Amino acid sequence: MTKRIGRQTVAFSKPVVIRAAASTVGKKEGEGPLGQYFDEIAEDSMMGEDSWEKAESCFVAENMALVLKKAGLTHEDIQYVLCGDLLNQCMGTTFGIKDLPIPFLGLFGACSTMGEAMSVGAMLIDGGFAEYVLGGASSHFCAAEKQFRFPLPLGIQRPQSATRTVTGDGAVVLAKEGEGPQITMVTTGKIIDMGITDAQNMGAAMAPAAVDLLLAHFQETGRTPQDYDVIVTGDLGYVGHQLVVELMAKEGYDMSENYTDCGILIFDRETQDTHSGGSGCACSAVTFCGYFYPKLCSGEINRMLFIPTGALLSADSAVLGLTIPAVAHGVVIESGKGSCT
Amino acid sequence: MTKRIGRQTVAFSKPVVIRAAASTVGKKEGEGPLGQYFDEIAEDSMMGEDSWEKAESCFVAENMALVLKKAGLTHEDIQYVLCGDLLNQCMGTTFGIKDLPIPFLGLFGACSTMGEAMSVGAMLIDGGFAEYVLGGASSHFCAAEKQFRFPLPLGIQRPQSATRTVTGDGAVVLAKEGEGPQITMVTTGKIIDMGITDAQNMGAAMAPAAVDLLLAHFQETGRTPQDYDVIVTGDLGYVGHQLVVELMAKEGYDMSENYTDCGILIFDRETQDTHSGGSGCACSAVTFCGYFYPKLCSGEINRMLFIPTGALLSADSAVLGLTIPAVAHGVVIESGKGSCT
Repeated sequence: MTKRIGRQTVAFSKPVVIRAAASTVGKKEGEGPLGQYFDEIAEDSMMGEDSWEKAESCFVAENMALVLKKAGLTHEDIQYVLCGDLLNQCMGTTFGIKDLPIPFLGLFGACSTMGEAMSVGAMLIDGGFAEYVLGGASSHFCAAEKQFRFPLPLGIQRPQSATRTVTGDGAVVLAKEGEGPQITMVTTGKIIDMGITDAQNMGAAMAPAAVDLLLAHFQETGRTPQDYDVIVTGDLGYVGHQLVVELMAKEGYDMSENYTDCGILIFDRETQDTHSGGSGCACSAVTFCGYFYPKLCSGEINRMLFIPTGALLSADSAVLGLTIPAVAHGVVIESGKGSCT
Repeated sequence: MTKRIGRQTVAFSKPVVIRAAASTVGKKEGEGPLGQYFDEIAEDSMMGEDSWEKAESCFVAENMALVLKKAGLTHEDIQYVLCGDLLNQCMGTTFGIKDLPIPFLGLFGACSTMGEAMSVGAMLIDGGFAEYVLGGASSHFCAAEKQFRFPLPLGIQRPQSATRTVTGDGAVVLAKEGEGPQITMVTTGKIIDMGITDAQNMGAAMAPAAVDLLLAHFQETGRTPQDYDVIVTGDLGYVGHQLVVELMAKEGYDMSENYTDCGILIFDRETQDTHSGGSGCACSAVTFCGYFYPKLCSGEINRMLFIPTGALLSADSAVLGLTIPAVAHGVVIESGKGSCT
């Protein structure tokens, strides 16, 4: 039986398999350090559409089709599609998957959405409700900047603490059985609000949520950072990553050796002018699907703790001068046996 | 074991109990036909705040506290809080629950959110992941009008097909065992897009999703409308309700006798000038929690099919001339034994 091992953590009775993973990204992401790892790189980040929002939906639609193909499945095999994004009313998702005739459970976790999709998806499978779940998350730099910060044509200078929203979609097919890396535990985050109000410093807003999640995970599982080959947060960037290392050190955990962040990995700060790094729902989603998933398949990574982080920011809450609450969802993934797609 | 009885429907191995339900509404809702059934009626729909969005969060916070009190539980007893709303980035939810230290899974189903919360919550409990789940949904008339239609001070005339967003929050505590009405099945909806683009006619946009859900439910369970004491959609209003009756008749199902809609019940069209009826995430949530839940407790209703309906509309998608895709989530609830709160 499934084991609840703490307030926020459950361990699965039978690990849930990540049968396939796919990543489709924009041009700038393709030019970055992880470019060679992504499945598809769009030459035109507008995807031939006349708006950024419609372009984001194209990334979703194409990548969902790709991950199904990689898993050797069709939409008829999938019991639930779980996904979301950070546009108003998750419109990237809605218009990206509306032609997929699969029961839909929309998620909102801002940039933590990929963690939420993998967590809920794994629970639905382990609970006996599905054999296959399709999970994913997307974002688009231009659509996000327009919505949360400044219209791009204004050319507003961005501070060094700012991150750049990743353009793309990452998606996984979770399965009850078969070959592939395995989700063995999930630790679900609480909302943490430390009073940060600066939308140009999301790393600082989200770092306390990542720390809260890490502490809960280690305390409930009895593990330490050294029990993982790698611990990866979603999109804290350089600023948030450093904060996590410092805050965890104060709590007695050494995160200096095997902890990184998808926002740090996805862009080259020196050559790509990306300041604190990458962010957005797609940041953790495409980095996991493109870069980490194959390493879990090959056994190069045996056990990882993946923690997509989300800033529960709204353009309206910013106008009202409200804070930026944050949440983080942790997923433990172990190298599976056999072939991966 | 849990039984999947069709593409979209699962039946629970052991029914999930709705341990408590609570509803907190605005002044106009309190003056409507269901006024006497709500737990709390706010005299001031601003809740003493200086913005509608913050007021919505107050409805959430107060009603979540109320439902926990009614269930005789504290936040420490609850494993997951599942909720959402229709503001940009679910900010009504975020700021309403951010001080509740409970693992949070944010949902986006627009006005179908209460159905999604009850569905996912019941699956998490039946799957063995939680003993108690807190689920809810909220909306606020003024915040929704500002976001999706016209600023209220303009005094734009609303067509007869328009619905009025319900102000309030409805919340339930789902439990693994104990007394109270029981969730026995859920049928999860697919996104249905029939090409409607008029945000002043949400009933027409959502009716096809309700019909698709009803057909899936009846076909997969072998039931007919007559197997239910009452079938209730979320917020189709008079326009959408009539469409459902007509479309279902064409499919051979008689929905003329025991089918109603929360949007029809919550306002008096003649005296309250509410046109096609009520809508919004709170419409189905408060009508279920305030009006139907006690009838399930008392046995006045033995078996109901509750179908919150959602228009996956965004102000941005409307500007881009996109359609309004819709989704509906069905929950079968049967009268429980013993006392209810």
